[in-house]
Amino acid sequence: MAKEMKLNRKILDLNEKYAAKNSEFFAARNINCFNVISSPGAGKTTLLYHTIKTISEAISPSVIVGDIATDLDAAKLKNTGVPAIQINTEGACHLTAKQVNDALLELNDHAPDMVFIENVGNLVCPSAFQLGETGKVTILSTAEGDDKPAKYPGSFANSLALVISKIDLLETGAVDFDVDKVISQVKKLNNDIAIFQVSSKLGQGIEPWCSWLLENSKR
Amino acid sequence: MAKEMKLNRKILDLNEKYAAKNSEFFAARNINCFNVISSPGAGKTTLLYHTIKTISEAISPSVIVGDIATDLDAAKLKNTGVPAIQINTEGACHLTAKQVNDALLELNDHAPDMVFIENVGNLVCPSAFQLGETGKVTILSTAEGDDKPAKYPGSFANSLALVISKIDLLETGAVDFDVDKVISQVKKLNNDIAIFQVSSKLGQGIEPWCSWLLENSKR
Repeated sequence: MAKEMKLNRKILDLNEKYAAKNSEFFAARNINCFNVISSPGAGKTTLLYHTIKTISEAISPSVIVGDIATDLDAAKLKNTGVPAIQINTEGACHLTAKQVNDALLELNDHAPDMVFIENVGNLVCPSAFQLGETGKVTILSTAEGDDKPAKYPGSFANSLALVISKIDLLETGAVDFDVDKVISQVKKLNNDIAIFQVSSKLGQGIEPWCSWLLENSKR
Repeated sequence: MAKEMKLNRKILDLNEKYAAKNSEFFAARNINCFNVISSPGAGKTTLLYHTIKTISEAISPSVIVGDIATDLDAAKLKNTGVPAIQINTEGACHLTAKQVNDALLELNDHAPDMVFIENVGNLVCPSAFQLGETGKVTILSTAEGDDKPAKYPGSFANSLALVISKIDLLETGAVDFDVDKVISQVKKLNNDIAIFQVSSKLGQGIEPWCSWLLENSKR
């Protein structure tokens, strides 16, 4: 086990070197970068689609999308009219800072003033790999159940914001999800976290979430 | 990157050594072992609860449960009356064969004739770590969307069975999930896979799934 930890340490050290580069890139250009983390199917792409459509009226965002395979998500996000770069991790469970660094070199010409990174759908690994982001945003869908912050504390504990997605499912009575319980659990892990409740499908809750992003785009 | 791959190779080699031990353990006792993989919140625990209640009438299963934190899932599964061992991975994104080996030593006295391993909620990493299981079972909830087999092919390509869960959500009209599209995508990855549609909430589809398990318990 000690050996395994030492090996993991080397991988993380290499990652942190590139994360520092990315952080410098963002700081030099006054860009806020949000690393968006969730389980598969929590609604990252759909939320980002509506978010980008809304905030593009005020600023110029770009997006970097990580997936194991396919370019489905970048293709969807390109429909917003902003630059979207797809990274295929070819089996890997999270984006690395090096992959993001390569994508930033491509994005540089577009001079974005906000960058979203849609990480690989995984509530565990992405939170352990810094990408040089300004902050992490975790998305939790109501369909996933209200015990997830207790069972997967990592990304909740280390995010600037939590978006509770698919709140329209609450009204169907088909999911067991106590919003107050989730908020209370998450606040215990991370008292400063901003929490939003959104239905991308119905357009509910998009405005306060986008206002928070724009507020946080002023350094 | 070559260095990182070499380090990962060492971790996988160590894992495979214990996976072989587990495989011998199962073979010597005529036990079928199913490694159950899904995203967080796809309904692994609830499905296993109803599955174990049903098949316990015919055979004596045991269950090993992996979670980052808490013993919530093992506590739920103990209510079925069968032995349930919780493993906390303390941040790690998948179970290792060594952790399963430790749990099997504890389970040995109970002489189970089927073992379920509920892996950490993660559609990516668990499929890369063999646990010595007879076969993998992937669970995909309708709330996750129908593009998941294309985007996360690994566990679908390597499973004996797929359980499409939360089919009751289809009737609410609140999820975008085309069952035929998913079946077609999955069959392209893995033509021999058995596919079941289940609502644990309503008890729909539990019988054919349990019949398949019992059929597969006859070596």
